[in-house]
Amino acid sequence: MIRASPSALLIDLYELVMAQGYFELGMHDTAVFELFSRRLPSQRRFLIAAGLEQALAYLETLCFSAEDIAYLSSLGLFSTRFLDHLRDLRFTGAVHAMPEGTPFFADEPILRVTAPILEAQLVESRILNICHFQTLIASKAARVLLAAQGRRLVDFGMRRAHEADAALFAARAAYLAGFDATATVEAGRAFGVPLAGTLAHSFIEAHDLESDAFRNFTLTGPAGTTLLLDTYDTERATRRVIALARELRSTRHQILALRIDSGDLEAQARVVRSLLDAAGHGEIQIIASGGLDEHAIEQLLAARAPIDVFGVGTALAASTDAAALDMAYKLECYAGKARRKRSSGKATWPGVKQVFRECDAQAAIVDRIALAEEQFPGEALLQPVMQRGRRLVPAPSLSETREYCRRQILALPASLRQIAPGGEPFAAIVSSKLRELAAGLDRTDS
Amino acid sequence: MIRASPSALLIDLYELVMAQGYFELGMHDTAVFELFSRRLPSQRRFLIAAGLEQALAYLETLCFSAEDIAYLSSLGLFSTRFLDHLRDLRFTGAVHAMPEGTPFFADEPILRVTAPILEAQLVESRILNICHFQTLIASKAARVLLAAQGRRLVDFGMRRAHEADAALFAARAAYLAGFDATATVEAGRAFGVPLAGTLAHSFIEAHDLESDAFRNFTLTGPAGTTLLLDTYDTERATRRVIALARELRSTRHQILALRIDSGDLEAQARVVRSLLDAAGHGEIQIIASGGLDEHAIEQLLAARAPIDVFGVGTALAASTDAAALDMAYKLECYAGKARRKRSSGKATWPGVKQVFRECDAQAAIVDRIALAEEQFPGEALLQPVMQRGRRLVPAPSLSETREYCRRQILALPASLRQIAPGGEPFAAIVSSKLRELAAGLDRTDS
Repeated sequence: MIRASPSALLIDLYELVMAQGYFELGMHDTAVFELFSRRLPSQRRFLIAAGLEQALAYLETLCFSAEDIAYLSSLGLFSTRFLDHLRDLRFTGAVHAMPEGTPFFADEPILRVTAPILEAQLVESRILNICHFQTLIASKAARVLLAAQGRRLVDFGMRRAHEADAALFAARAAYLAGFDATATVEAGRAFGVPLAGTLAHSFIEAHDLESDAFRNFTLTGPAGTTLLLDTYDTERATRRVIALARELRSTRHQILALRIDSGDLEAQARVVRSLLDAAGHGEIQIIASGGLDEHAIEQLLAARAPIDVFGVGTALAASTDAAALDMAYKLECYAGKARRKRSSGKATWPGVKQVFRECDAQAAIVDRIALAEEQFPGEALLQPVMQRGRRLVPAPSLSETREYCRRQILALPASLRQIAPGGEPFAAIVSSKLRELAAGLDRTDS
Repeated sequence: MIRASPSALLIDLYELVMAQGYFELGMHDTAVFELFSRRLPSQRRFLIAAGLEQALAYLETLCFSAEDIAYLSSLGLFSTRFLDHLRDLRFTGAVHAMPEGTPFFADEPILRVTAPILEAQLVESRILNICHFQTLIASKAARVLLAAQGRRLVDFGMRRAHEADAALFAARAAYLAGFDATATVEAGRAFGVPLAGTLAHSFIEAHDLESDAFRNFTLTGPAGTTLLLDTYDTERATRRVIALARELRSTRHQILALRIDSGDLEAQARVVRSLLDAAGHGEIQIIASGGLDEHAIEQLLAARAPIDVFGVGTALAASTDAAALDMAYKLECYAGKARRKRSSGKATWPGVKQVFRECDAQAAIVDRIALAEEQFPGEALLQPVMQRGRRLVPAPSLSETREYCRRQILALPASLRQIAPGGEPFAAIVSSKLRELAAGLDRTDS
């Protein structure tokens, strides 16, 4: 690992207070919690499950250090007996989950934890914190992927991602969902995400003459250079690049691409493309960036803007159209009995569940949310991934996951692949046994 | 420190490529970069500067480890000479900044870095990543503070904050801007933010009877308990709490507060309050949570909902109405010459600047953005905080900063303290010298 995991104290206080309750009351029976999204953000037609690898790593390594215990003790909220128990605690439970990169929909559990209730409860905050974020970003990246129709996509989001971890894991989640590269160097090292980068306006401005900046950057940078056109005047900058390319013709220095970062990207890309083509530089690519999201990209490509690569930053890494999902981690079963929260607007489907996905003859998806004990045609999406606190199979490589995810996204029915808002949200079929169970629980008095 | 800082490789690739350029070209002159927000999100009337302490800690400790250098070397993009330079690099520059907790407006620099251009450039990505996030959250928290009119505010946002660091620093930034407590335990340890927590529905559901759950939680939890009412039926739950309070009358166990987390919070709070009052429990407080933001809180209080404490989660920790600010870190001066980017829609005010804030007789604020060498009445908001890579003064305590920030927020003119959208955005006056400098640069040919 490149960086130590956050301590076990990255947790909501109430998990610890409840854990003490379960401990003191001798409630050691098995609980089943499930992670799911109650509804999708208005613009989203599907979500992409992500973060499982980090969630499993968290569960495998969870422990409270002596310093953690000392701090908790200083709060005056916990008994010595409970803190002694916490000191020795490891996660000993089982996990079932959808593979990372799987599209999913409202109410479908993507991860199920089965463990003594104290453990299953304790991991709620961080499991949510991990899976929510990467799912959020992978889901956003998938929309950008669909809009870009095969154009190359680079994550430029580090600066406005929500602090360090968000930058790092946004790069991972975006790559997982089909992005080609990231500018965040640490994501290259930690996850093998390919790196890409250009230059900033400051490099140009630090020179008195833009043409000197272009020459200097090309001569001192990597063999294949990208230059930035819009510091002063994009058209004039393009002519300077063409002159420079002529000057460097017989050297090892090659200009591979030009970036436009502001203004009317479509109009500017056209001007740049035609100047380049007229000068015989059909090989130089155009990169567009600057406030791009899936809608802007869709519009640029609908207008046939000659853009080869899109750099997407803030809209991706902070998922600005929907910066959070209505994701929850809920108790569905304790001591063998199904449980159900009935809070207004937040009722959950009780019991241990499975999602069965069938593709019909029209390539449409039929999902069934059912009790895990039921059998339906199609694929059972929740698979065992951890038992007794240990992973069952080695993690797939990130490129394997990425390939799986790309296939899944591109195989979605056309109505779900649409970027524009509108249309009925996809709803899974809830099995009649599950409906009966829920209705039965509602009749019992708690 | 509780957790190691991210490595120096948490950086955009292009910073390193440009740094190599400056190095190879012998460009070692002093650069001045400034951090500012081009415009405010549509609903915001002011922003709150935050993150300075973490930014200074980053600058003081910045260095590339042997592993970092080895990874960079493996990329094949950098010369050995440059990597040797990077290995020994420390930040040696100066920083001027607004104190954390200072309200600021569009185009006003909140932080200025003066250093050899290689260093000043290199720190761009992470300075932005740190300051953008805490400023975003402190600014959101300040709005919630204004809406809450003195009610107690608790941060419940960890689960939907964007991964671990975001949870931790959102708790810090929210406290800095006036929140009273957080549920995130690590923020208590790392920053001394007071902790608060209640219980989740799962604890109730794990019991067959809600009344048993209430009793068990009260008996095993801290001496002063909060119970959760809306798992099944809020009114019935309240009656059960009242019965329990009677039962525990002569014990050390006290019920301090009741939480409602779903449904019509106003109507339910009224029912709960009147049941409690009728039973002589005027001392038991009501906590509301569940999808709250500044608008919901303003509405609840306008309707005189009897709520004492608000738990705010997702809307705060992910700043969902505006998940990013248009914040940038731009070169303003190099080798003694003012510099200006002229990109369409992204032009910057050139030169080394200062913000002068004057409060007029009507308690309105007059801000002037001027050249640092100018003199205007009022307070110069950018103060020296670091020189030659070392802090000039010890960091103020977080409670001092919080007190300063609360005073600043409550002293804002009424028009800026309004929550509802509408009204003219506040604009600082740009000094005529600064305007002349910008116009002059636009006439020069680059």
